[in-house]
Amino acid sequence: MESRVNSDPWTVVAERLGTDLYLDLQPDPTETARGRGARRRQSLASALREAIDDGRLPPGTRVPPYRSLAADTGLARGTVAAVYQELVAEGWLVARQGSGTRVADTAQRTTAPRLTPASSSVRSAPRHDFSLGQPNPSLFPRRDWIAATRRAVTAAPDDAFGPGDPHGHPALRTSLAAYLSRARGVRTTPDQIVVTTSVKSALELLSRTVFDTTIAVESHGLPFHRQAVERGGTAAVPIPIDGGGAVVDALPHSVSAVLLTPSHQYPTGIALSPTRRTAVIEWARTSGRLIVEDDYDGELRYDREPVGALQALGPDAVIYTGSVSKSLSPAVRIAWLVLPPPMVDTVVQAKGIREPDASVVDQLILADLIDTGAYDRHIRRSRQFYRRRRDVLTARLARTGVDVPGIAAGLHAVIPVPADIEPLIAAEAARRDIALVGLSGFRHPDVPQESGGIVVGFGTPSASSFTTDVDALLDLLADYLPNRRLRAE
Amino acid sequence: MESRVNSDPWTVVAERLGTDLYLDLQPDPTETARGRGARRRQSLASALREAIDDGRLPPGTRVPPYRSLAADTGLARGTVAAVYQELVAEGWLVARQGSGTRVADTAQRTTAPRLTPASSSVRSAPRHDFSLGQPNPSLFPRRDWIAATRRAVTAAPDDAFGPGDPHGHPALRTSLAAYLSRARGVRTTPDQIVVTTSVKSALELLSRTVFDTTIAVESHGLPFHRQAVERGGTAAVPIPIDGGGAVVDALPHSVSAVLLTPSHQYPTGIALSPTRRTAVIEWARTSGRLIVEDDYDGELRYDREPVGALQALGPDAVIYTGSVSKSLSPAVRIAWLVLPPPMVDTVVQAKGIREPDASVVDQLILADLIDTGAYDRHIRRSRQFYRRRRDVLTARLARTGVDVPGIAAGLHAVIPVPADIEPLIAAEAARRDIALVGLSGFRHPDVPQESGGIVVGFGTPSASSFTTDVDALLDLLADYLPNRRLRAE
Repeated sequence: MESRVNSDPWTVVAERLGTDLYLDLQPDPTETARGRGARRRQSLASALREAIDDGRLPPGTRVPPYRSLAADTGLARGTVAAVYQELVAEGWLVARQGSGTRVADTAQRTTAPRLTPASSSVRSAPRHDFSLGQPNPSLFPRRDWIAATRRAVTAAPDDAFGPGDPHGHPALRTSLAAYLSRARGVRTTPDQIVVTTSVKSALELLSRTVFDTTIAVESHGLPFHRQAVERGGTAAVPIPIDGGGAVVDALPHSVSAVLLTPSHQYPTGIALSPTRRTAVIEWARTSGRLIVEDDYDGELRYDREPVGALQALGPDAVIYTGSVSKSLSPAVRIAWLVLPPPMVDTVVQAKGIREPDASVVDQLILADLIDTGAYDRHIRRSRQFYRRRRDVLTARLARTGVDVPGIAAGLHAVIPVPADIEPLIAAEAARRDIALVGLSGFRHPDVPQESGGIVVGFGTPSASSFTTDVDALLDLLADYLPNRRLRAE
Repeated sequence: MESRVNSDPWTVVAERLGTDLYLDLQPDPTETARGRGARRRQSLASALREAIDDGRLPPGTRVPPYRSLAADTGLARGTVAAVYQELVAEGWLVARQGSGTRVADTAQRTTAPRLTPASSSVRSAPRHDFSLGQPNPSLFPRRDWIAATRRAVTAAPDDAFGPGDPHGHPALRTSLAAYLSRARGVRTTPDQIVVTTSVKSALELLSRTVFDTTIAVESHGLPFHRQAVERGGTAAVPIPIDGGGAVVDALPHSVSAVLLTPSHQYPTGIALSPTRRTAVIEWARTSGRLIVEDDYDGELRYDREPVGALQALGPDAVIYTGSVSKSLSPAVRIAWLVLPPPMVDTVVQAKGIREPDASVVDQLILADLIDTGAYDRHIRRSRQFYRRRRDVLTARLARTGVDVPGIAAGLHAVIPVPADIEPLIAAEAARRDIALVGLSGFRHPDVPQESGGIVVGFGTPSASSFTTDVDALLDLLADYLPNRRLRAE
């Protein structure tokens, strides 16, 4: 195949795709090599999105193999693979084994009339599902939920079915204050708790009320953290992570707050070191700044006692947040904030009158589950289930010489791979119907990629398929890390 | 009492309140009388809010009777009463029988440290509760909910407890499509339905996706309509209402959409006339604009068959929205949008990945309630309950010669009163511990007040107190409309 690099790359793409895609690939002399790479990647991604959006690339169209497109355009194979991966994650493209990568049926964002109604039901479940850090849905405590509903809905006073309190139902706030104190060491009264539907909406609320213009976030973290903060009008700047967790010495002076996952850094799994825990509390106290602690899976620690909440070291300086999404199910929409007392009114008022957000009926049921001990029993059962899975996964990986750090807790592991190989593995995984995401999917856009990784959520596969799923994963890794004996035996 | 009008009014206020309040009361020669009145009212409201916010007026401080403050400042009594009413509604002031109007304990919005934790539990229920258009919480179908939970949670496939679909659970969308078609004449497939937590969040979502810069709203309507639209970045301009409902001939060219309550205008209760229904559909179709129909209480019609949804006349031009807040309970956070098919993907994508918002468990329970007929039975029972209340209220008012229009449906009535008396009645109601709101509370800020009214939500009072509550209301009206024989006999 003839390479036409630097001649007229957009024509090449146009020929291969049967449409005109403008790619801004000309070098700018002032750019660094990294800046140029990022711009080219962005240009290809934008051109593809626009062509899909306006119908030039109709649903079902097969896009060229990334190797061919890379050769034709002069872009690195890893760049093109990363762009395909990004567009698959966003729903613009679908990658299926045997049929290549195609434009998705549901990808068109156009508002032009269409004959067939759109549907999200065409997204079928992947064969090997290592999607991110979700709990296993088969563990949902159905009988407990039904029994708690019977008790809570029968016993509730009439006014529980009136307009809810944006602060959260007092019964749930009382139960949560006791639970968070007992299980996580959080220091709080019921009045300091504000109930929301999700940590995402909690962060958006904070961004609209107590954050100033800029906060710091960990260099790698959940993309929704940044999105929620930014949607509320606050910028999020990254701080590095090392073996001791977030490098809190690097906190810039310009930020009014820092958002951390101190018990189990997401996604690297590292716990913030004791020295840094003390240091960041000191930083917040002396400078009048805030720490937001997302304790997203604090209860799920396998090898020793849970790392207690950072909030306990400085209840006046830490806003603590969590939800039932990992412990119970993301299908139950209940999350909470624990606020320093002076902030409570501001945050509650920002929610607006008559806007409880979270179902009051569900709040009463969760309060019952906590009060009767059913919630604790469920967490113990879940911890045993995930610990067994963690043991299977680490044993199989250990036999192959792959060291997986930060797997002492939680529902996911990061398998380190060279940075340049990461997008290739991720793209090939999609092709083999293995759902997983590369570490770069969690990287703050301003942070250069230095190390790569594959994030494996080991909670989601079904009990019947788990070992087969792990074998498929090891086979995939073996094709890219050939000098380690990864192939399943 | 000596009047010091035009000398130094802010000093007067300062003396009476023990603090310095700046009031901008000097006339501006270019102002109209109405503009001056609005500015003075605004100035007093702002000065009071600021003084409460920064602690110059501490919680518990008694503010002067509005008659005295009016006499001292030269403001009209109605103006001062309206400002007090506004601040009571916003939570800055509380009015209690026998103890006058005081600064509320929870009113401070400051983020300065405070010793006692904030709590919203200090808001106690009013003695006579005619708060707005809420269903009676004693009607909540507890046994049906418990039975539906048992069936739905037992029968659900495992993946129902995984990450929810932002589109809404397919089971609920299927049940809702059938129900809305049967009960409201809505023309929809399950795929056109998007599930949210509330009509407010649904409108915010539309504002972020399909509205252009400006939409039209009815001159009187739910304040949250405007707030949700504006928070999403869209301006809301008013169109008038007359005896035929919203005057759709007056729709300005600048708007991309109009938000209507065609079945039962909120709060006036008027149904949009057949001619206007046809006209507004024609307007939308020929100009490529949109109609948003909030069918907030479409099922609750007492004297004849429900007015069908406007959406049925133009499913390609109308976005239909509704919720269970009136039909079941605002404690259950489920609402829906019915969208023209080309918009579905845009709206679902704007919700974001893994963000179902509404509890998936509750979605399955509602689907079960609809499918088993329990939801329809509950609505029939509710309709009978509210029809009896409506009959009691209209009979008592009719004996006094007060004509109450638009009470053929819904959970509230508007009692017409002269515009200048409305704020006096509302302020006095607060003093007598009667919860109700003046019509001006629903007026778009750009619309001049021409007629007054008292909005009475007759759903909320408890069964044991309803007749006593109505008597308290008639006594109140009698003090302000003395030439009508209103006093309870």
